[in-house]
Amino acid sequence: MGKTVYLDYSAGMPTDKRVVEVMLPYFSHEFGNPSSLHAYGGPARTAVETAREQVAKLVGAPDLKYIIFTSGATESNNLAIKGLARKRADKGKHIITSMAEHMSILNVCKALEKEGFKVTYLPIDKEAFVSVKAVEEAIKDDTILVTLGYANGEVGTIQDIKAIGEICQKKKVAFHVDAVPAAGRIPIDVKAEHIDLMTISSNDLYGPKGVGALYVGKGMDIVPLFDGGGQERKFRSGTENVPGIVGMGKAAELAMAEMGAEAKRLMALRDRLIDMVLKAIPASHLNGSRTKRLPQNANMRFSYIEGEALILNLDMVDVCTSTSSACTSKTLEPSHVLRAMGISHEEAHSALLINLGRLTRDEDIDVMIKVLPEIVKRLREMSPLTPKGLYKD
Amino acid sequence: MGKTVYLDYSAGMPTDKRVVEVMLPYFSHEFGNPSSLHAYGGPARTAVETAREQVAKLVGAPDLKYIIFTSGATESNNLAIKGLARKRADKGKHIITSMAEHMSILNVCKALEKEGFKVTYLPIDKEAFVSVKAVEEAIKDDTILVTLGYANGEVGTIQDIKAIGEICQKKKVAFHVDAVPAAGRIPIDVKAEHIDLMTISSNDLYGPKGVGALYVGKGMDIVPLFDGGGQERKFRSGTENVPGIVGMGKAAELAMAEMGAEAKRLMALRDRLIDMVLKAIPASHLNGSRTKRLPQNANMRFSYIEGEALILNLDMVDVCTSTSSACTSKTLEPSHVLRAMGISHEEAHSALLINLGRLTRDEDIDVMIKVLPEIVKRLREMSPLTPKGLYKD
Repeated sequence: MGKTVYLDYSAGMPTDKRVVEVMLPYFSHEFGNPSSLHAYGGPARTAVETAREQVAKLVGAPDLKYIIFTSGATESNNLAIKGLARKRADKGKHIITSMAEHMSILNVCKALEKEGFKVTYLPIDKEAFVSVKAVEEAIKDDTILVTLGYANGEVGTIQDIKAIGEICQKKKVAFHVDAVPAAGRIPIDVKAEHIDLMTISSNDLYGPKGVGALYVGKGMDIVPLFDGGGQERKFRSGTENVPGIVGMGKAAELAMAEMGAEAKRLMALRDRLIDMVLKAIPASHLNGSRTKRLPQNANMRFSYIEGEALILNLDMVDVCTSTSSACTSKTLEPSHVLRAMGISHEEAHSALLINLGRLTRDEDIDVMIKVLPEIVKRLREMSPLTPKGLYKD
Repeated sequence: MGKTVYLDYSAGMPTDKRVVEVMLPYFSHEFGNPSSLHAYGGPARTAVETAREQVAKLVGAPDLKYIIFTSGATESNNLAIKGLARKRADKGKHIITSMAEHMSILNVCKALEKEGFKVTYLPIDKEAFVSVKAVEEAIKDDTILVTLGYANGEVGTIQDIKAIGEICQKKKVAFHVDAVPAAGRIPIDVKAEHIDLMTISSNDLYGPKGVGALYVGKGMDIVPLFDGGGQERKFRSGTENVPGIVGMGKAAELAMAEMGAEAKRLMALRDRLIDMVLKAIPASHLNGSRTKRLPQNANMRFSYIEGEALILNLDMVDVCTSTSSACTSKTLEPSHVLRAMGISHEEAHSALLINLGRLTRDEDIDVMIKVLPEIVKRLREMSPLTPKGLYKD
């Protein structure tokens, strides 16, 4: 692909070479089943438990047994929300979430509404923050679960999870957090932040796709999605994906070791990009909070153009970006997150989602700063919406 | 592990080197999200569709779109049975299966009973066959689904799937088949055998763990287990596990190309093992059908001893086997399959599950034929159950 500038780390991430390396023996030699009694079972069992500990450490889980391996973030979100709701249905049927969550939260909530649950979709403010006070006020006697993203995967805004966790603990409501874009990027401590259930994705830690984890904290009981052999504390039956789990463990270990320096590095790259773009392009805006923001995320919009045309034009010069979450990129609707922030339908259509990652270098930002203003200008020249005099030349 | 003789291919299987090789680029370079619009999405999308076609061909699926990728056999069984049952609940709540299915069938049926479904657990005969006539007679007006294994994973017996499929089609009842131990080992044709839904495991094809497929045939509609981004025809949300899917596709292609020769080779090895063991060990028995049997499977029992002691003693001389399915090896109960065949509790405890595989050679069988009679004899000498004069020396 030549010298492609890849700035779409939220859609797909490479598996770190150091991760692939530790996975390989589990394909070819150590292919045992952790449940087997003979010599082949042992190394597989040990490897899975090591990975469990690595993931537990990353998020401050007080015991490795609280980590359940799944097939990824979507499964973890489904397992947490449906599992908790179905388990506690006799105690109440009210769930609280926000309007700006990932589709694997929102569509799960919609599915549960069909099962008779009631869901409150809290609004977000113009920087995508969920109001802590609104969460508190929404909790009623029959509320069993609050489910929110640790940070918004599209606009990068980091919520005040600890404050919400304290409220949930006080009100005895289970608190599920989708930490997919946040885990491994910023410090998370499930204990200190009073999180009961938390979704973690392997690929978002530079681990392999097809594996994820769910933190199922003390006292939490959930109805499994899969019945079968009773693996993973009976919460998730199915033969363990040993190479995948080993890879996720290694990825968690690397993320933990490198998080501080990497966050600092990415924030510097990100801020340079944001500052230069805002300066170079008239009628350009940053979506989401400027300060409480994921280090890797820069979501911007450029009035009067279509984000889709923008990413296709960027693709033609080998720059990969998105308009919004890859999971919803096939629809023609603008991002529900931007709409919930109060951004107009038209303006929401002009968004560009940029996610930096472990392989992003200064040169990539240089390319972006060079090509983006040119492409935006060209597209605006073709757009009937562009006001005269926007460009003063 | 030295020269280990691995005869436990049903518990865990190595991923074929040729499979790992085609997976590797999808970890490091082609890490795109198939849903992305830019250049990185394309190769991932193409790779997933190629794999879908490879799996479709293996089982005679009339269109590649009928193959849905999942995280493995347990998910596929859960998705098929729960998905179909919940979808058709308004048409009827009766399901038919057999007493000898895998735990991911039986425990799913038990979970559905809690949701108000009624399940008929058909008996099996002493060779583990499900009676075609019994299936026909069990179908009532409110029957919505028949779910059976293509072949029994423990005792190797191959069912008359085509005859059962014809009945289901005639009676307009959906037919789900768990083909995990059969797919890739013996020819399967979902169309000719009137199968509506079919579970396939990647690892059982010498593909990677953590990936599987569900054939969802024409006109079949199911309620998804995962809600989210709507991938896989909305039947299975979640970012595609591209390396895993690519690996499963290659494994299916290899299995298809090599199935005939490999089945012949394994049957010769298996039959030599069975014949020699039956001859060398008094009071030894083959469990399951001698003729309609999976090529790789030899399940035997040796009266008066404990299968568990036997596998541990075999392990001490570097021979890996099981007592029954790895998924149930942690329980102390004897195999439910053997019990359903009418074998006594005590005799069922004396079973040894042997599964040959792609790396099994003549020398492995030679070792087994040498060590097994000695170990069985030694264990019997310690057993109070062994009748005097069993060994005439």
